[in-house]
Amino acid sequence: MTTLPGPTLGVVGAGQLGRMLAEAAAPLGVEVAVSDPTEDAPAAPVAREQLVGGFDDRETFRRLAERVDVLTFEIELVDPELLQAVSEETNTPVHPNPETLSLIEDKLVQKRRMEAAGVPVPPFRAVEKAADVYEAAEELGYPLMLKARMGGYDGRGNVAIEDASDVEPALEQVAGPAMVEGFVDYERELAIMGVKGDGEIDTFPVTETIHREEILRETVAPARTDEGTIERAEGIAHDVLAEMSGRGVYGIELFEGSDGDILLNEIAPRPHNSGHWTIEGCVTSQFEQHVRAVLGWPLGSTERRCPTVSANILGDVGRQKATLYNVDRALEADGCHLHYYGKDEVYELRKMGHLTRTGADGADPTELLEATRAVRDELTFDDAAE
Amino acid sequence: MTTLPGPTLGVVGAGQLGRMLAEAAAPLGVEVAVSDPTEDAPAAPVAREQLVGGFDDRETFRRLAERVDVLTFEIELVDPELLQAVSEETNTPVHPNPETLSLIEDKLVQKRRMEAAGVPVPPFRAVEKAADVYEAAEELGYPLMLKARMGGYDGRGNVAIEDASDVEPALEQVAGPAMVEGFVDYERELAIMGVKGDGEIDTFPVTETIHREEILRETVAPARTDEGTIERAEGIAHDVLAEMSGRGVYGIELFEGSDGDILLNEIAPRPHNSGHWTIEGCVTSQFEQHVRAVLGWPLGSTERRCPTVSANILGDVGRQKATLYNVDRALEADGCHLHYYGKDEVYELRKMGHLTRTGADGADPTELLEATRAVRDELTFDDAAE
Repeated sequence: MTTLPGPTLGVVGAGQLGRMLAEAAAPLGVEVAVSDPTEDAPAAPVAREQLVGGFDDRETFRRLAERVDVLTFEIELVDPELLQAVSEETNTPVHPNPETLSLIEDKLVQKRRMEAAGVPVPPFRAVEKAADVYEAAEELGYPLMLKARMGGYDGRGNVAIEDASDVEPALEQVAGPAMVEGFVDYERELAIMGVKGDGEIDTFPVTETIHREEILRETVAPARTDEGTIERAEGIAHDVLAEMSGRGVYGIELFEGSDGDILLNEIAPRPHNSGHWTIEGCVTSQFEQHVRAVLGWPLGSTERRCPTVSANILGDVGRQKATLYNVDRALEADGCHLHYYGKDEVYELRKMGHLTRTGADGADPTELLEATRAVRDELTFDDAAE
Repeated sequence: MTTLPGPTLGVVGAGQLGRMLAEAAAPLGVEVAVSDPTEDAPAAPVAREQLVGGFDDRETFRRLAERVDVLTFEIELVDPELLQAVSEETNTPVHPNPETLSLIEDKLVQKRRMEAAGVPVPPFRAVEKAADVYEAAEELGYPLMLKARMGGYDGRGNVAIEDASDVEPALEQVAGPAMVEGFVDYERELAIMGVKGDGEIDTFPVTETIHREEILRETVAPARTDEGTIERAEGIAHDVLAEMSGRGVYGIELFEGSDGDILLNEIAPRPHNSGHWTIEGCVTSQFEQHVRAVLGWPLGSTERRCPTVSANILGDVGRQKATLYNVDRALEADGCHLHYYGKDEVYELRKMGHLTRTGADGADPTELLEATRAVRDELTFDDAAE
């Protein structure tokens, strides 16, 4: 039986995801402490406390665990074995299960597990050296995508290989355990935020995701695809969730092939950029849902409230102290919600914030997307705009 | 031209209003510091910092002012002259204008000013001694409501006088400058959250408020009254706002007479309990709107998103450490949003949290109200429920 005040929650990682988790936990009466290697990270001002320490630092994990009732994480760079060990030592449960993190953080392990579970994935091969890539290319053909098995996100660690001459430079760039994937001729990208609670499984509505340079730019809900595709995507999301052993929210990225087939792209064991729109767009946000799930509380409704678009605010200048200009129109635009992450420094393509724009029932998603982009595209960190 | 990160905001008072202000400021990239006489007040865990000090403590105001770019307050107990003086000394603007606070905090001054401005108010008289009350009763008749001119809220400082025998005990209970109001035969109570920005004035949708023992229990939006009444209420809210000189959100409480006439009850120069439903129920919440207004930013849309009811979670036991039982159903109920204020101690009728429940477009407000009450009424601080 749930009582309040709720358990206190420790979040390893204090970037924007930690910040939005803390924002969502507060109304629930759940106090949040965070840890991050960067002092005064984005979550710090809204959390009760930030500890400073690395994602593989036992002492930081220990201090955080001793401070809170339940642990979670908002970044895959966390060392799962260390987190598990500290969880056991301090008798502080951690969700999702670090085992799940181990399964997900190595993209090759993730793909193999998903393939074994019958989840459709793009063709892939483990590669160590150039010869392995040439061999893969014979079977899968060029172009190939070379992916670092560990530590890649926002397209970092992914290098396209157009032909044989790209192989050696690509391997040098990735510099570590890697895999290649065959080219996927996709129509669009979709994402589903899934959630595993205490015996409950649910999914948020299918979201269309728009990437450029492998970085998410916008999301559109409802996704602009047909009902059959949406049902197939949901089915696959449920198959993926069935393989996950820990409570929490999962970001499930999918390709919709030109034939309508769905392929799994990647899984993140945490709230995900493609689910930020749920803050205003759904009855329960992915962040509140993650808090509920990791605490073992009943899950909230994942229902969509209205057509909703999100647009990332990315760094558009080189590394410097961050000041965002032309904010007025974003504040004035109808149904536009600002989320600024409070990062001190900006650099090219750094995720600095996002806009969410809600539309009336039945609003055209494409028009909503264009209207949102128009506002977002006026925002700049370039001080020429001053 | 607005840039981000925004100015930092200092809030005098760190109760639930300060807490929800801090929750609303975070996504906007606005950092909040708060001050309150009670250590670790409700806003402390979500604000950057809490200073500890009284609402008439110059040194606390000074330290807060030096810490932030703009000051505001969330409680009328603040000493307006002191706040004004510190604002000038430290060159830190304060909104709303402390002059407005001076006008509002003395209920007699407030009523006189509003009457002079042509705003309809219940008949009232200043009273100092029993003879004044008897004299007022001759003109206005019994029953009368005796009200402390200063410091009353949630019905504290209000004492009903049914007949002449109640006069002396009532005056003893109020013990200070007072006024009496004639009995208002009202059909229902309404409230409007108004906002004054930098040259902009706007109102949130008219809300029905349901009190018992003079404490707000539930709000219903849309108010269950006719269009003409709503228009009259909005007109009066605009008249009230025209008299206010400072930027910010104002809670305007109204009586709807059985003849459909509207009378002003009270004004609060801050976000108000009757506007909590706007967090989920409107495009912009009253808290985000207050942040925007005091910073001089463009105001957000006050549009209602859907039928929305809120229900206060009040203390139902004597003073003790607070544990709220039976929370599961509130977490499970469709469209139900929990707001727990994190107060350490509970006592009878203390405001400990609230539920907001959103309904589908066209949902019947009465059914929504009943469904919300049913969930709220299961919540208890009584450990017999354990």
